[in-house]
Amino acid sequence: MVKYDIKCLRCGTKLPSKKWFWKHEEDNGTLTIAYKDVESYRFKDVLNTEFIDIRRYANLLPIRLKTLNMAPISPTPIVKRRIRGVNAFFKLEYLLPSGSFKDRGALISIAKVKELRIKSIIEDSSGNAGIAFTLFSSIYGMQANIFIPKDAPEGKKRMLKALGANVYEVEGSREKVNYEAREYERKGYGVYVGHWWNPFFIEGIKTIAFELHEQIGISNVDAIIVPTSSGGLLLGIYKGVVELKKMGEIPKLPRLIAVQASGYARLCYELGYGMGVEYSKLADGLRINNPPRIGEMVLAVKETKGTCYYVTDDEIKKSLKKLWSMGFTVEPTSAVTFSALLKALSERVIEKESNVVIVLTGSGLKMLDKILSLIT
Amino acid sequence: MVKYDIKCLRCGTKLPSKKWFWKHEEDNGTLTIAYKDVESYRFKDVLNTEFIDIRRYANLLPIRLKTLNMAPISPTPIVKRRIRGVNAFFKLEYLLPSGSFKDRGALISIAKVKELRIKSIIEDSSGNAGIAFTLFSSIYGMQANIFIPKDAPEGKKRMLKALGANVYEVEGSREKVNYEAREYERKGYGVYVGHWWNPFFIEGIKTIAFELHEQIGISNVDAIIVPTSSGGLLLGIYKGVVELKKMGEIPKLPRLIAVQASGYARLCYELGYGMGVEYSKLADGLRINNPPRIGEMVLAVKETKGTCYYVTDDEIKKSLKKLWSMGFTVEPTSAVTFSALLKALSERVIEKESNVVIVLTGSGLKMLDKILSLIT
Repeated sequence: MVKYDIKCLRCGTKLPSKKWFWKHEEDNGTLTIAYKDVESYRFKDVLNTEFIDIRRYANLLPIRLKTLNMAPISPTPIVKRRIRGVNAFFKLEYLLPSGSFKDRGALISIAKVKELRIKSIIEDSSGNAGIAFTLFSSIYGMQANIFIPKDAPEGKKRMLKALGANVYEVEGSREKVNYEAREYERKGYGVYVGHWWNPFFIEGIKTIAFELHEQIGISNVDAIIVPTSSGGLLLGIYKGVVELKKMGEIPKLPRLIAVQASGYARLCYELGYGMGVEYSKLADGLRINNPPRIGEMVLAVKETKGTCYYVTDDEIKKSLKKLWSMGFTVEPTSAVTFSALLKALSERVIEKESNVVIVLTGSGLKMLDKILSLIT
Repeated sequence: MVKYDIKCLRCGTKLPSKKWFWKHEEDNGTLTIAYKDVESYRFKDVLNTEFIDIRRYANLLPIRLKTLNMAPISPTPIVKRRIRGVNAFFKLEYLLPSGSFKDRGALISIAKVKELRIKSIIEDSSGNAGIAFTLFSSIYGMQANIFIPKDAPEGKKRMLKALGANVYEVEGSREKVNYEAREYERKGYGVYVGHWWNPFFIEGIKTIAFELHEQIGISNVDAIIVPTSSGGLLLGIYKGVVELKKMGEIPKLPRLIAVQASGYARLCYELGYGMGVEYSKLADGLRINNPPRIGEMVLAVKETKGTCYYVTDDEIKKSLKKLWSMGFTVEPTSAVTFSALLKALSERVIEKESNVVIVLTGSGLKMLDKILSLIT
């Protein structure tokens, strides 16, 4: 475990690391985990090479190595394909234990909660994040309390219950669900670990960048295509590559190409690309209007000379079909990446012979019926 | 790639390696891949340590390294838990790309077929094997022809079609399905890669043993609990540990504890433990009466001083519930392992403080509805 501060990104205040914080109460600022001397590290030297799982990176995480002993996170595969003259490297995050990249963030959050001897967590979600937090709560022997919209898919509700969560169904908007979850924390029933806010979530996600670096070398990567809504994935990968640069492993940052769902493209909007007229139904993992970390997301795209696309349901359907024909058994939300690749190629935002990483975020196996009706 | 012979286990005849064989036509013998001088190898020296995926082991496989470049098989996690005084190491094979351990065998088989420039494969299966062979056929750009029983689950049929298989539904027994698939090969429509017979399948499976050795050291392992029906998993792990012993990596073989489904326990029967009266419905992956490699299976258990258990549906149901409560999202078939662990403990076949590996073979996500009805 590296030494760290929990720092408010709005005012710079440092919060004590022996307590659980998910935001800076005084000014509603988002938090980050700031490392004291990451510049003095050499990536190769701090790796725990005796492990071929996430414990390899324990020295770059705010968690003790031994807390990770029960954590079933192995590196996800990377698969290279030639697509229209570029080298596309697909990163198969949908093969993580609960079927999405969210496992990485949930693991590090739950591990931290475990170290703080807290026994009960609260999270709001209608999908993959709730399942990921519940899975790691089971593994670490704590109680998960998951707040979901009343109209969330029945299958996901039952999966949450099967994994042992207390499931609270809330009538009303997604914001109402969020409010009820935070209210539950105020009543003292556990700590809120919501992935839109909690900075340990981002620490878990950044291990994607470390794995990519070990698998293909980030210096060789021109761009990374990242499905984006609350920003955890984008900001996690960004933090990972920034730390690699600070350690002298890479000379410059790869471009981050964010992809959003039409109608919910708040990041694209902030960057001046509009929001999309149609409201996507298929990209159910990307329908967030008001991500609290929007400022950080804008910065990550600008700093890496990246860009942002939004994708419609028609495009998602075509891309989903294509990805399944290539053997990638992903959910519709993940298919936005392939549409973005095609857009970036046709606009020459990505040049021929580039090396492009495409992050495939969620498994289609949880919703096979729906997938099959879309692609067959 | 190591030099190898394809050898008949009945008569010892060597078959040419430039052609596809799945059995010895003359005497109906099963085949094995025999390496010329594995004794002269040192495991640590032949590993391709620059890779953290299955390419690490390419020098111990009958496949060229570069053929594996498109193969998305990363090490599966190993998770340690204390259970009634033993150290249980769960090997999460259900996290492989198509959701079962069969991916390892399907990959090596399809990669070999690819090297032989064959464009079409034929396989008979009603479940995970068909899905695994189809997935890797998609990845390697060949046509999968899958023969399944007419009454196979609708979801699995649709999954096969979604991945691009030609699906042939056969009325009648499982043996009839097998016959029709082999008939299709005789008509010249492709090569039969059936996992009950094809020796390359076992080569893929043996990488489980290599991974285990790198993860926890096989010398520390007292027993491995293995769901067993056609024998691919048992024989693959057995071949892997035997090769590790030949290379001088381990002084002796861990005990292999086979687990079968009640009513279909042919291996238990051959070993003198009976077959079970009840016919299991829940362990749908284990219902094979007449595995062609039964003689080899008996030998693997005897040579390792192992044993065999069969498990009823009531036991499966309890174990499934327990495994899900621990965060292991497996299918009913995989739950037989936990029942076997309890039996072995109560019979003192496994002593206190032993280190036991439990292979969790298949994902429950493909059949969530059924799982949830069993455990909630």
